[in-house]
Amino acid sequence: METTQHRVVATGHADWAGTSTQYQYIGPDQNKHAERVSWKGHAEAVRRFITDLLKQKPPALTDLSHLAAVGHRVVHGGDYTTAIQITPDVRSRIEQLRTLAPLHNPPSLETLAAAEAELPNLPHIATFDTAFHSTLPPKAYTYPIPMKWTRDWGIRRFGFHGLSHAYCSNQATNMLDRPRDELRLVICHLGHGCSAAAVQGGRCLDTTMGFTPLDGLMMATRSGSIDPGILEYVQNNHGLSAEQVGHSLNHDSGLLGVSEISGDLRQLEEAANDGHELAQLAIGIYVHRIRQAIGALTVTLGGIDALIFTAGVGENSSGIRRLICSDLECLGLELDTEANTACQPDADIATKSSRGRILVIATREDLTMVREIQAIIDLSSQGPGGVPQVTVSKSNDKLPGISNS
Amino acid sequence: METTQHRVVATGHADWAGTSTQYQYIGPDQNKHAERVSWKGHAEAVRRFITDLLKQKPPALTDLSHLAAVGHRVVHGGDYTTAIQITPDVRSRIEQLRTLAPLHNPPSLETLAAAEAELPNLPHIATFDTAFHSTLPPKAYTYPIPMKWTRDWGIRRFGFHGLSHAYCSNQATNMLDRPRDELRLVICHLGHGCSAAAVQGGRCLDTTMGFTPLDGLMMATRSGSIDPGILEYVQNNHGLSAEQVGHSLNHDSGLLGVSEISGDLRQLEEAANDGHELAQLAIGIYVHRIRQAIGALTVTLGGIDALIFTAGVGENSSGIRRLICSDLECLGLELDTEANTACQPDADIATKSSRGRILVIATREDLTMVREIQAIIDLSSQGPGGVPQVTVSKSNDKLPGISNS
Repeated sequence: METTQHRVVATGHADWAGTSTQYQYIGPDQNKHAERVSWKGHAEAVRRFITDLLKQKPPALTDLSHLAAVGHRVVHGGDYTTAIQITPDVRSRIEQLRTLAPLHNPPSLETLAAAEAELPNLPHIATFDTAFHSTLPPKAYTYPIPMKWTRDWGIRRFGFHGLSHAYCSNQATNMLDRPRDELRLVICHLGHGCSAAAVQGGRCLDTTMGFTPLDGLMMATRSGSIDPGILEYVQNNHGLSAEQVGHSLNHDSGLLGVSEISGDLRQLEEAANDGHELAQLAIGIYVHRIRQAIGALTVTLGGIDALIFTAGVGENSSGIRRLICSDLECLGLELDTEANTACQPDADIATKSSRGRILVIATREDLTMVREIQAIIDLSSQGPGGVPQVTVSKSNDKLPGISNS
Repeated sequence: METTQHRVVATGHADWAGTSTQYQYIGPDQNKHAERVSWKGHAEAVRRFITDLLKQKPPALTDLSHLAAVGHRVVHGGDYTTAIQITPDVRSRIEQLRTLAPLHNPPSLETLAAAEAELPNLPHIATFDTAFHSTLPPKAYTYPIPMKWTRDWGIRRFGFHGLSHAYCSNQATNMLDRPRDELRLVICHLGHGCSAAAVQGGRCLDTTMGFTPLDGLMMATRSGSIDPGILEYVQNNHGLSAEQVGHSLNHDSGLLGVSEISGDLRQLEEAANDGHELAQLAIGIYVHRIRQAIGALTVTLGGIDALIFTAGVGENSSGIRRLICSDLECLGLELDTEANTACQPDADIATKSSRGRILVIATREDLTMVREIQAIIDLSSQGPGGVPQVTVSKSNDKLPGISNS
């Protein structure tokens, strides 16, 4: 977890998806403190974590005044192109963006309110999952819809997972012995949500997620792109409301929807090995669509210098990586199957003779946040403190962490 | 219009999109008879054409008994994998498919009824735009939606423009001096509607149109694929009904929707040259998305032996072809810009050194129909007659034609 510049001092994680909340704290000694707690919710989690920073032994901090700033991961930043210190104006803009990310922005606001109440004297910085994609050219961010929808209603491709794509872009550039300015990368962030991005010289040129995080690749429970004609058809012919269709496409589709058993690829790979046909089909569709995205984004870049896998599936499933990379010689990519199987990220798993590299990178959204926060405030002048990060607050996401600079 | 085997004896064309109907007949002498007529509709057009076959000088036929069969182009054939002689059962199946192709199948049925009434003793054969795509593997035709929608409601990728893709696949195979069995083709049918297909050894492996002809590429007035989240958003936040959204995405989107001036690329190219920014943007998005589809389908094929352009735009716009083919060396494709400008289809417009070929083919859906009809009935035993084709009956489509075998 170390880099030359940053060290994680403590992380907290709360998951209240089940009947009770599982809370976990890891302090500077790397020991896990896990317990079942009676509370649930983002505000409670923030309060408990800040308490633990001082009270758990060994303490992560001796005094809250050692902290330099609080970083907040906000999924939807609309037109914001960089991280920004949160002011009342910024907060109301994030509030306005609720309708664009109803699952993601409201918990961020709840977390923000709790963190501001606990740490009122620190700068609070919003870092956005959309910001990395603000370099998209108009031909990539404009949908072929009535211009009125674009102009008056603000419907455009935003793209998400930007903190992860930004980290991988930077890390890949460090790993590759190639000219950096024009380096062409296709990054596949494959987790519960999935997106791919085309990056040239550090600038994002296109990405698969769009106006919402439903666009693009097939995901654990999200469909990704489908024929828009299907939505009208099921509303008109099968009596579903727009909300019901939206709910089905977000929660009952993707790997779960096709396999009918799970959205978790580890379970599906096991089932597929045991001959479960729908699990095999789900994996087949998933891989097929990722491969097509790699082809699409490679053409957008005019070629590919490296393909990058990251996030839960991308970092951990050698089987899925093997399926995706099969027969990619047409793009100049050749997988070293042994290196793939043995891979411990960060690693290069292409054959020596492969024209383009294939990298597996353990994503570190927190480090992108630190970098973006440093671009706004000078952390070196803040004494011995660090940067506690309060990440976007889905119940099963990693919650706060701290990095000392 | 000649091939070694087939000759068009007469064609009829009726267009009632304006205030009056424009009717045009071309007989064996290739002279055009054009007139404004008072009738409109498919049935009237069929009757007038059959009358003209006998009456216009020189007559195309001396007697209707010389005819061998009537071919009907039907856009949506559901699960039909080949052309089929129309029986009451087949007709009711085409009727059941109305909801899947509400703009296309009803006019076909109207045309069929008129043709059967006029020519009751001939076999009537339905040829389907979906049939060529019946070879798609499950990973390409299954959407990542709830399996119930697939299994119980029949929602899957069908694909369209199959008569054109089939013709181009066959014609490209004839033009290329390469082993036919595994020949990998990406075919771009770019007309008012647009679709691309990946074909290997004559079998279609994937295509961009889907459950409906709204999926995939940006078109004259259709959006193609967009974030499904947009549909829920405009319904919930801007008060549009499912029907209104469907109408907008089919009729007010695509090139017309973005440019706000026209869905016709000839007009947009002129406007773009004059500095019209939305026309430039519309062309930019159109080309961007076609290029991405070419990349996606190339990966599906594991490489590309030839890229094929066909239909109105594909055959006639050297400017659009140049934009699409710019910087495709990463797929092994290099355009010969002079050959592209001078191109008279059918032609190869790749450079000599290009690894893959780039072909422009004048599509002949009628010849696919003749081939498919011949697979069902032995035309050689039918005397001197030929095959009159009654194509699917959009008001501005070419209507009936006759080919003698």
